[in-house]
Order: sequence, then C-alpha cells, then structure tokens
Amino acid sequence: MIDKMKKIAVLTSGGDAPGMNAAIRSVVRTCAYYKIDCVGVYRGYDGLLDADFVALDARSVRGVINKGGTFLKSARCKRFMTPEGRKIAYDNLTKAGIDGIVLIGGDGTFTGGLVFNSEYGFPVMGIPGTIDNDINGTDRTLGYDTALNTAVEAIDKIRDTAHSHDRLFFVEVMGRDVGHIAINAGIGAGAEEILVPEEDMGIDRLVESLERSKKSGKTSSIVVVAEGDKIGKSVFELKDYVDENLEEYDVRVSVLGHMQRGGSPTCYDRVLASRMGVKAVESLMEGKSNYMVGTIHDKMSLTPLEEAIKGKTKLNKELIRVSDIMTT
Amino acid sequence: MIDKMKKIAVLTSGGDAPGMNAAIRSVVRTCAYYKIDCVGVYRGYDGLLDADFVALDARSVRGVINKGGTFLKSARCKRFMTPEGRKIAYDNLTKAGIDGIVLIGGDGTFTGGLVFNSEYGFPVMGIPGTIDNDINGTDRTLGYDTALNTAVEAIDKIRDTAHSHDRLFFVEVMGRDVGHIAINAGIGAGAEEILVPEEDMGIDRLVESLERSKKSGKTSSIVVVAEGDKIGKSVFELKDYVDENLEEYDVRVSVLGHMQRGGSPTCYDRVLASRMGVKAVESLMEGKSNYMVGTIHDKMSLTPLEEAIKGKTKLNKELIRVSDIMTT
Amino acid sequence: MIDKMKKIAVLTSGGDAPGMNAAIRSVVRTCAYYKIDCVGVYRGYDGLLDADFVALDARSVRGVINKGGTFLKSARCKRFMTPEGRKIAYDNLTKAGIDGIVLIGGDGTFTGGLVFNSEYGFPVMGIPGTIDNDINGTDRTLGYDTALNTAVEAIDKIRDTAHSHDRLFFVEVMGRDVGHIAINAGIGAGAEEILVPEEDMGIDRLVESLERSKKSGKTSSIVVVAEGDKIGKSVFELKDYVDENLEEYDVRVSVLGHMQRGGSPTCYDRVLASRMGVKAVESLMEGKSNYMVGTIHDKMSLTPLEEAIKGKTKLNKELIRVSDIMTT
Amino acid sequence: MIDKMKKIAVLTSGGDAPGMNAAIRSVVRTCAYYKIDCVGVYRGYDGLLDADFVALDARSVRGVINKGGTFLKSARCKRFMTPEGRKIAYDNLTKAGIDGIVLIGGDGTFTGGLVFNSEYGFPVMGIPGTIDNDINGTDRTLGYDTALNTAVEAIDKIRDTAHSHDRLFFVEVMGRDVGHIAINAGIGAGAEEILVPEEDMGIDRLVESLERSKKSGKTSSIVVVAEGDKIGKSVFELKDYVDENLEEYDVRVSVLGHMQRGGSPTCYDRVLASRMGVKAVESLMEGKSNYMVGTIHDKMSLTPLEEAIKGKTKLNKELIRVSDIMTT
Repeated sequence: MIDKMKKIAVLTSGGDAPGMNAAIRSVVRTCAYYKIDCVGVYRGYDGLLDADFVALDARSVRGVINKGGTFLKSARCKRFMTPEGRKIAYDNLTKAGIDGIVLIGGDGTFTGGLVFNSEYGFPVMGIPGTIDNDINGTDRTLGYDTALNTAVEAIDKIRDTAHSHDRLFFVEVMGRDVGHIAINAGIGAGAEEILVPEEDMGIDRLVESLERSKKSGKTSSIVVVAEGDKIGKSVFELKDYVDENLEEYDVRVSVLGHMQRGGSPTCYDRVLASRMGVKAVESLMEGKSNYMVGTIHDKMSLTPLEEAIKGKTKLNKELIRVSDIMTT
Repeated sequence: MIDKMKKIAVLTSGGDAPGMNAAIRSVVRTCAYYKIDCVGVYRGYDGLLDADFVALDARSVRGVINKGGTFLKSARCKRFMTPEGRKIAYDNLTKAGIDGIVLIGGDGTFTGGLVFNSEYGFPVMGIPGTIDNDINGTDRTLGYDTALNTAVEAIDKIRDTAHSHDRLFFVEVMGRDVGHIAINAGIGAGAEEILVPEEDMGIDRLVESLERSKKSGKTSSIVVVAEGDKIGKSVFELKDYVDENLEEYDVRVSVLGHMQRGGSPTCYDRVLASRMGVKAVESLMEGKSNYMVGTIHDKMSLTPLEEAIKGKTKLNKELIRVSDIMTT
Repeated sequence: MIDKMKKIAVLTSGGDAPGMNAAIRSVVRTCAYYKIDCVGVYRGYDGLLDADFVALDARSVRGVINKGGTFLKSARCKRFMTPEGRKIAYDNLTKAGIDGIVLIGGDGTFTGGLVFNSEYGFPVMGIPGTIDNDINGTDRTLGYDTALNTAVEAIDKIRDTAHSHDRLFFVEVMGRDVGHIAINAGIGAGAEEILVPEEDMGIDRLVESLERSKKSGKTSSIVVVAEGDKIGKSVFELKDYVDENLEEYDVRVSVLGHMQRGGSPTCYDRVLASRMGVKAVESLMEGKSNYMVGTIHDKMSLTPLEEAIKGKTKLNKELIRVSDIMTT
Repeated sequence: MIDKMKKIAVLTSGGDAPGMNAAIRSVVRTCAYYKIDCVGVYRGYDGLLDADFVALDARSVRGVINKGGTFLKSARCKRFMTPEGRKIAYDNLTKAGIDGIVLIGGDGTFTGGLVFNSEYGFPVMGIPGTIDNDINGTDRTLGYDTALNTAVEAIDKIRDTAHSHDRLFFVEVMGRDVGHIAINAGIGAGAEEILVPEEDMGIDRLVESLERSKKSGKTSSIVVVAEGDKIGKSVFELKDYVDENLEEYDVRVSVLGHMQRGGSPTCYDRVLASRMGVKAVESLMEGKSNYMVGTIHDKMSLTPLEEAIKGKTKLNKELIRVSDIMTT
C-alpha cells in the first residue's frame, strides 16, 4: 500500500438508507486502524461547500451501527452541480488537508463525484447506499435488505386485516424505476399480484386475474405495486378502477412511504456496510480512485463509477415466474 | 353459578383489532374448562344470519394467541339492522341450541347486541375490541396497546429519514373521533406537534409553532395527526398549507393506515384478551346479560352495554400538557 | 409553585430498565420548560461522589426517547452506603449549586435517597425504573411493559421450535422475588405452566400436570419459570427432574437473561417516562421531597418513598386463575 | 419436461429453521401449478415409516409463509437408519402412489435420502434448511438469514444493559462446527471479540485484547462466542477465567439458545424458500434425483447431494479481517 492518504473524508448524499451509519462507522474505524485522520462532512455535498466538517475517531461512531438514517445527514445539493460550487468544495478539501473522500449514496452522488474528480483529480471512492438496489456492480446496495424486511413486516400486518375483512389491498412500495423491492417484498408477503415498472401486466389482465382469484375461493388479496409500475396508475387510481370493474371486492389502499427508508439495519446491511467501509478506505490507500465498492458473488469488488451509474440492475425474471407460480 | 349455559357462541364484528384471536381463544378455552360447548360464528352478524357456525374446542384455538386479525373474520352487516334479519339470527341461534353469545367488537357491535337482546331476551356479553380505545367502561380496549406500538415503531423509522434530511413530516394515525392513538403515539415517538380531534390548535398556531421550532435550531419535525383532527384538514392539505406558508421546510406526508389494525398483539393485549374471555363466559354462566366486560383500575368489571356505547372515553388532558412540555 | 429550584440533578441507579433514557429526557425537558438548569449525574450515586456531572439541555436529550439502557449509566455504589460517602455527595451537590435531585431506580436507590435526605434534608424525588414491577405506589414500574414484550417475543420464537419438535421447554424469565413478568409473559405466550415465587406448585404437581397434558394430546409445552420460583429449582434442575420422571418428553432449557433489560421501550413505557419526569420536576418545584412519582389508576400520584420501598406489589391472583383456565 | 410425476411428497427433517413453512408452501403451490398431487409427511422420516401423510393443496398452505417452525413437524428418526426401516418407508411411499420426494433439512437428512435412493432408486430432491449455513452448494441455507437477525436483535438489547453498567458479556450463539452465525452476528452487533470454531484465538490473547480495550477507554464489551469455539471453553468457563484474570470487568453471560431457531422468516428466507420449492419440484419433473437445490451467485443451482454433505462451507476470512478492523 502506498501511504499517501493522511486524511480521508466521508459523506452521505441522496436519499438516506439504513446502514449508512454503519458504513460511516466502518470508514472511520478503518481510518483509525491505519492511523489515518478521518473527517465527516455534514449534509452531503452541501457540507463540502460550507466546509461543515467534523473530526471523527473510533469513539465518535460508537453505538451508531444499529441506528437508521445517517448522523452526517444527507441532502441534494444544486450548488455542487456548478463549476463554481465544485471549486469551493475543492478549496475546502485542500484547506482541510483532505487527501481522498468516500461518497456514500446513489447514482446522483456518484455522478457528482466523477465530475469532481475529472476536474480536480481528487480521489473519490463510492459506496452504494440506497434502498432501491438499482446500482450496477454490487450484489445488493446498502439498505435494500432492510427496506425489504420493513415492507414485508408492514404487509404482514395489512394482510391480517385484509384477511379478517375479506378485502383487496393495493400496497404501494418504493421503486420508481425498478421493481426489486416490489417483487421481493411481494413474494415474501405472499402477495396475489405484483406490479413492477419492468413489466406491463395491463390493467385488464389484473382485473381478470383478481376475478379468477375470487372465483377460486380467495376472499382477500394483496396487490403490491411499485411506485413506478408500468400500468402507470397510482394505487388510488387502481382502487378506483377496480371499484368500478370488480364489484365483489372491498378495496383499500396503503402507501408504505418513507418508513421504508428508516429503521435499524438488518444484520446483512450492517455486515455489508462494515465490509464496504474497509474496502473503500483500503482502495483509496492503494491509490485507486473513481471506483464503487461492492460485492459481486459475495466477494468484495471495485466497479468503475462510470459503469456503476450507467444502468439499473435488471429484475431477475426468475422471480416473476416464482411469483406467478406461488399465486396459483 | 347457575348452570343454564350449555352452549355459547362467539363472534367478532366491526373493525378488526389485534388480540381478537386471543379473546376468541379465551372464550373457547373457558367454555372447555367449564365443559360448555362453544361455537364460532364467521363474519360477525352476517354469520348469524347465514348460520355460518363452527364448533370450537380447546385444540382449535391452538397457536392463535399471537396472530393478528380474527380467524372468525369480521364484517359490518346491514341485514342485522332490520327486524327481519334479527329474526333469522334468533332462529339460527335457537336451532343450534346456543344459550348465549359473546360479541367482540366496538360500539356498533354492542348496539346491535342490545337491540337483539331487547327483542328476544337472548343473553349477550360484550368484549371491547377496537384499536381506538373509545369505549366507556374499560381502562383500555383490546388492540389499542398493540396499535400504539405499531404506530410508534413506524414513526421511529420515519424519524430516521426526517432527521437525515432535515424534513417535516405529517404522519396520520388512526382515530376519527378520538385522539388516544395520536396523543400517546405522538408523545412516545417524540413528535413536535400532535393534532387531535378534541382540541382545535388552529392552523396558524401550528405554523407559528413550527416556525419557532425551526428558529430554535430544530431541523426536522414530526407532526402526528389523528384522522379526525379538529383543524379539519387532511395531512395532504396540511402539507400544502405549510408548503405555502413555511418556506424553510421540506415537507412530506405519511399515512400509516391499515397496518395499525394488524400485527401480533402485545403482551398487554394478549393478557387482557385472556382475562376478558374468562370474565365474559363466567358472566353469562352467572345469568348476566347486556354487559361489556372490561378492566377498571386493572380489575375485571362489567359495564352495562347501554353505558358503554354512550360516549367516548375522554382524552387525558394531562397528556396534552406533557406533550407541550416535552416539545419545548 | 415556589420558585426555589434553580438547578435539578438526575441520576439512574440500580439495574437498568428500558425507558430510563425517556425519563431522563423528560426531566431535562421539564427543567428547560421551567427554565431550571438540569445536571445529569453519571453512574448513579458513584457519580455523586465523584462529582461526575454533565449539564443537560433540551437538545442533549434529542433522540434518546427510543433508546434502551441509560446514557447516564447506572451502578451500585457501596461508598454511598457510608456516612462519609454521603457527606462527599452532599458537598458535591452543594458546590454545584444543585437544589434537588430526581432518582430513577428501584428500592435500593430509594433507600439511599431516604437516608441521604434524613441526614441533609436534601430534596429527593423518585421515579420507579425497574423491569420487575415490584414497587408499591404505581400501577406499573418503568421498563416493565417493555420487558414483558421482550419476553413474550422470545418465547414466541421458542414455541415455534418446541412445536416443530414436540419438545418441552423450561424458559426462565427475570423475577427473583415477584412473578409479575412470569405470570404475564406466561399467559401472553400461551405457556402450559407458569412457576412463580409466590406460589409453591410443588414439583410433583408439575410433573402430573405435564403428564396429563401429554395424555390429552399436547405434544409440545412451554413452562415459564421465574428466577425465584417457589419450587426452588433452577430451570436446569427442573429439566433433569423431568428427564428422569417423564420419559416421553424431549426437554430443553432456555434462560432469557439480560436481553430482558434492554431494547427500545414500548409506547407505554415512553409515555409513562414522559409523565413521570414532568411530575417529578414539578413536585420538587412545589417544595415536596421524599416521594416516589407513579401512576395510580392511570393518574399521576405521589407515594412517600418509605411506603414505596416497604413491600412488593402483590401478584394478581386473578391472573393465576386465568392462567389455569387457559391451559385446560 | 417428462411427465412422470403424478404425486410428490415433502417432509422436513433435522433441526427446524425459519422458512421451512415457506418452502413447504412453495412445493405445494408448484405442484398445484403443474397439477401434481402433493402429500405432506409429518415428523420427517418418522412419518414415512408410519405413513403419516396429509394431502396438501394450494389452500392448505395459506398463511404459513410468515410462520416460524414447520407445520409438518420435524424429528430425527433412528428407524430410518436401518434397512428394515427404509423398506417400510419405501412400501408406504409406493402404496400411496408417490413418485418423488422433497427433503427439507440438513446433511443428516440428505445422507438418509441418498442411502434410500441408492437402495430403491426413489427420486429425492433436497432443500437445505438449517440456520447454520453449513451446507456446500448454496450461497445461503434456508433460515440462516433469519437466525442472524434474531441474534443481532438480541445482542442489541444486551448491549443496552452492558453499556449502562460497564459490563463485559459473553454471548453464546449457535454454531457447533461453523462460525457463520458468530462472525456475522458479531460484526453486525458491533462485538469487541468474536470466537469461532475455525480459529483458535487462544484465551490469553482474548484476555490481553480485553485488557487493551479497557485501557483504551472502552467500558463495556460484547464477546460473541460460537457454541463450538476453538478455545474449547463454554461461555460459563470463559466468564470464570476472565473473572479471575481481569479484575476490572464485571462479567456476565447470555446463551441465546433455541430462540435462534424460531421466529417469522426474513424476506430473504421467504423468497429463497419460494424459489427453492419451485426448483425442487421442477427438477423432479425433469427426471432428476439426488440433487440439492440451492442458489449459487444468486442463480438457482443443483448440487449432487453427495457433494452437498461432503464438507462445511468455509468461513469467509475477509470477515475475520473486517471484524478485527471494526474493533480497533
């Protein structure tokens, strides 16, 4: 390892995800292990522009591994999208003697980091923190596993009341562009139908399927709907449509919403965060830059940030088949 | 004890609540203990009219104490509101040799039971099962404690993301006429403001309070809103209003919804259900009718159904004071 | 209110309990509300002797309401049991300008406070924080409700495996002198037998009962045992005895242990803590001393510390009956 | 697909694991999807010998996906280890017209299936259900993810009280031969030390490390110990040793025990179970036998049962490094 890194900064940016605190902790502790100074940046890129820094040592991250959210806070920063903004950020980093930075966030975060590096050559290393699991180059993103469990536990509760009252529920889960949460939480919660952005089921087929299900003796149903489902209707519009076209059902709606972003991370996310933090710091120490840390086949990996932001991870078609079979 | 009861029926009616299964189990096991036959009625009063009965013994309720919902299902039944409907119900009960019935539900359920008893003298005994805690004559209704914890755990998660992003969240909890859930879950979740049906805070005072809170350095806030809050605006309207009048805040909305009705009951609700089932059956055995079982000062009590349905339990004003002080 | 209180201290002492942090928070915020300075004392009475104080304002208790344990830490302090120790404590309090102190803990904590007050007339106010629910003068102690739910959730999990393997489990829960946790968690978890310190079931009756239960077709059983059960055998000895005397059973043991002391407090405990903190500070402001804050019939109450420490709250005999009936 | 399978049996055997019910459900629903009869066998191989069968259709597995344990029950069966026993099993299967069987369990289960197949050529297909994650040929075994989360949640609670009282806790988790649970739960819970069967830390190094940790200012510590840790001491012996050799610590012990086997499965385990059930039935339909279904790099895979039982999956050494760095 080259020994150029004397001080490393870490920030969280974009939508928050469970496990971000665990990832910060890992970056901080890895720095401590290698006797590198570590600096936390508040509110993502905003804090870079405001030089809103805090020195972090092993002790300062005590007790955060199981906390949801990010104690460094997160934000979307318009100023960093301008050359002027990035200039200020660079000056602040230099002034503070920082040699490299770990960026915890999603593709917006990484795009910012790439541009910044291209202009100033400043070493950046990404950690994919987002519940959506929509980043190339890692088996799973940080926070995704926790969000799945939060969604499934909530739907389990909704199922109790759906079943008691013979009702049909449309449950909206997060996922504007990708259906990872919907398909997994849907299968996990035993949903009768799952609507994802990747597949257009067509509303008529949905209604037919619900009718068939009713006839076969099912009295209650859960339909899990990703925010960005292909049918293009909100859960409220779906309810109205079904209300009009399927009289036998008593239809209700539940939008799980932002609770999916919070909560104590699962064991998987805590371990993943710990591994990623180590890899991020060690990669910077090795003189690398512009990579995203991830796991591929459960082994630590580096993916060029350019590739990471290129496309969304595809939905596993096998899961759609499994879902179809499970709801026979 | 008089020994007239040879067969007792039990049903769940109205909105379901966690602990209903535990209460059915208790009725069934108490019957078994006293060697009384027990019959479950499906779908509330609907099942009475359709003679949709099932024999229940100690074994049939194995493993239900920790399940949310009600395996006997619940429904609102219009036919039972007519004299003709109640005639059919009476005939079905008589034909099945049933001597008394335990009604698990809320005030609608009890009102039905009272009318039925007044017409046919059929022994009825109520168990207050509703998450709203709005029934006179019991310290707490069945399901209320569980709903409070479900709400608080969800708001804890929302707080994580609110805090990470310096946001203001309006979180709607159940409670159309009473603010019990809102005030308790609000205090429990450390909400900055709590809007209940019993008090008109006034939207301007709310905005002022949020402004003051912002100035005092608070960067994120949770406002818990009961469905039936006195300001008379939905959480979505509240968001719009604050968006217009409080520019510094990034405002979001979360409607907790039906998940509050489900989930495995807390220890309190399971024990309460067990106690109420015993008391209900033993009261019928003693020749009593038209009472609601409850706990008053944690001792088992009987309240005439007429009183139980008369008014809503009042909000504890002390809690409003506590809430004000906590959010200094 | 008299206005003598300018500065109030708060400490946690004895075994920790969920909700202690929420109670500290409430004391701090109530002080802030009344513009009284508030000082936290670390490690119970130990911190009084070491003048290990920290100034606490409304902000310093942000985010602690849902955290288990006590951030002020707790300890048992031998030095405070000596007159010399208490002299030092008094000097430290006086030097720091503290006018009164809130003691969060159990009967040992209160006994210390009483002696201290009798010697120096220093105003003390108690908040009952202990999972055992064994303090006179309050409906429930702080942490008890959470401990019940922790125990029930753990036993639910054990039940899964007991049932899958047709096993008998002895599950030990906390409660050296009182069976409150055992009887409630036992009923809540649907235990077949519950052994408490208050009643001597006799081991032969236990074995008979298990035999009967086996013959009646039950294939798995949970026996919940309080640490201090009257039979006087540990769960391991019980297992050995049953292994020898009941061959048909495959017997296992589980000691829930210290996890019962931790965890995020339930809504009930958070609200109770908030109410108690307000009452404690306001009572000191009114010139009162030597009381324990509590709720009696869900209304705030003050009980002289002398009475609070006198006896244990009695086990509700009704619960033993309910337990017997439930396990028919 | 060849169409020889008219009737498929499914059983669960060995130690139970969360997700077994979800796997049974998936087998049943996949059979229903392909119009194959499905038969459940109670109590593992025991039920084969007793012809303890139950017909299962899509409806009979409603509501089991989120239940811990196995409703078909599990057992270890000595009779099946004899040629005579297997003869009876074969006769019973033939008599019932069963064409193939899905075995959900661990290596003992698979060994039995292999021998059975070698003698009678009866088609068998394995699903790895065990919390220990010690089976070759799958990324993870069924139930492992849930057990990790159960352990981490329990240790989080223990941490609360450890930290409040400045204590050292030895927490024993499951894992007689492999340290997968210990290393992951240990990292996830932020343990200071983790003792696994694969590495002999040496008790002196442990004591040294704890001493160093104490000197560096850490006041409380969690040491996670796998049942079969290499030091070869039980948690109770470890406590005694440290009590004697490390006076500054107040040491406690907690054995998590059987609760790790129960509980509602995580989303991951529910989805994994659903996928495995589909693959198992479809593989039997394709005329395959003697394979274990699994996921390799998150793609469905078949591993010959012979290989699956050959060795334990190795501990990921990277995790040991991560653990060392995290506890700097």
